[in-house]
Amino acid sequence: MKTGIGMFYAVGVGPGDPAWMTRQACDVLGFCPVIAAPRSASGEMPALEVARGAVDLSRKSIVPLKFTAARARSARNAEYVRAASSIARVLDAGLSVAMVNLGDVSICATAYDVLDVLRRRGYATQMIPGITSFCAVAAALGTSLTDRDSPLHIYPDETGNLDMALELSGTKVLMKSGKAIGETAAALSCRGLAKEASMVADCGLPSQRIFSEMTDLPENVGVSSTVIVPEGHRAARKK
Amino acid sequence: MKTGIGMFYAVGVGPGDPAWMTRQACDVLGFCPVIAAPRSASGEMPALEVARGAVDLSRKSIVPLKFTAARARSARNAEYVRAASSIARVLDAGLSVAMVNLGDVSICATAYDVLDVLRRRGYATQMIPGITSFCAVAAALGTSLTDRDSPLHIYPDETGNLDMALELSGTKVLMKSGKAIGETAAALSCRGLAKEASMVADCGLPSQRIFSEMTDLPENVGVSSTVIVPEGHRAARKK
Repeated sequence: MKTGIGMFYAVGVGPGDPAWMTRQACDVLGFCPVIAAPRSASGEMPALEVARGAVDLSRKSIVPLKFTAARARSARNAEYVRAASSIARVLDAGLSVAMVNLGDVSICATAYDVLDVLRRRGYATQMIPGITSFCAVAAALGTSLTDRDSPLHIYPDETGNLDMALELSGTKVLMKSGKAIGETAAALSCRGLAKEASMVADCGLPSQRIFSEMTDLPENVGVSSTVIVPEGHRAARKK
Repeated sequence: MKTGIGMFYAVGVGPGDPAWMTRQACDVLGFCPVIAAPRSASGEMPALEVARGAVDLSRKSIVPLKFTAARARSARNAEYVRAASSIARVLDAGLSVAMVNLGDVSICATAYDVLDVLRRRGYATQMIPGITSFCAVAAALGTSLTDRDSPLHIYPDETGNLDMALELSGTKVLMKSGKAIGETAAALSCRGLAKEASMVADCGLPSQRIFSEMTDLPENVGVSSTVIVPEGHRAARKK
């Protein structure tokens, strides 16, 4: 591992509400002089905005990182390598860098992919856990995701085979981008699950919307949506 | 919903390190005059100890709640009802109660089961999300639990059919109490997965131990252990 250089922290800031940031995440953002943050094509930096709600970042250097929503693995990998290279220049100058990431850093996290590149290049890295979107969504809905006798299955947005997922026993979490919701709602409807399933869009953000069932959804339902499909016995209990 | 009475909060305090408590969890524990906490047969209150590490609880009334490790659903339900009844007396007196729970309150959470009883009786309740043990374990191991193309499956301790779980594509999380680890390690070994799987016992506590593979485990490996079984491609990457 390289010495005399900065440490890279991948920091989970939770899904949207700055109140969900941990004391550790706040501490790390407080002592790191440089904050790296994903920036969308339209110039928004949502994870940075969450962090700003909890920690004074006015004296920090901000390194924006551009990621497209590329589907091909090779294109995504090229973006992680480019982001890692711009962070490596800061680390080489002896400064520690905290990269903010919505939700947790072990679940569908861009910051993890950047960390992985930096670690392979010999940099010291650390993961700082955050509240996952599905735990925050469960809290917003007032529901449990497991019981002692049934498992929980998490399906990231781009994971195929929804039919096979819905066959599994236990609760299913479907993490979806806004545009894919119509298709998911149709699949749930076909299986008679639209009334049992519930959804929260943009959890913790001012634009948050709660749908207690997946019927009659509007066209635009937020940038990110998390769908909870309960198991049979839980669905029955809900009624 | 009853009015003029206290609110019940189920508060996730994370898996062990007080630094993993959220700002919201700290706030709620700060303003609630009464804190309810699970107490083991040996008199320990681990969730309360975590909370004490982050919030001054010296002026709070503490309500200990006794739960056995009963396996039968009816016995467990009787314990939740008894705990809810002792909390209800405090709520009826107009005081809000925060019940602390290790990890998150939507994943295998006793506080959720108590909340469910109170809600059915008409009390106002709220869930406060926490860091899950498996996210903290992933951070300790420096690993991701998902990628965009593969799901994640969470198996609580008492969920049967390990063989079926290990057949699923994607990463598997097996949440185990210490005594069940030997059996789990043997099952992983039979399938040639013992070297790919890793485990953290007592994550975040002073007794934390990290096992990068599931071979040659000692007899006593902590009260709670979380095993991560990566998917094939991820196991290959790890080597």
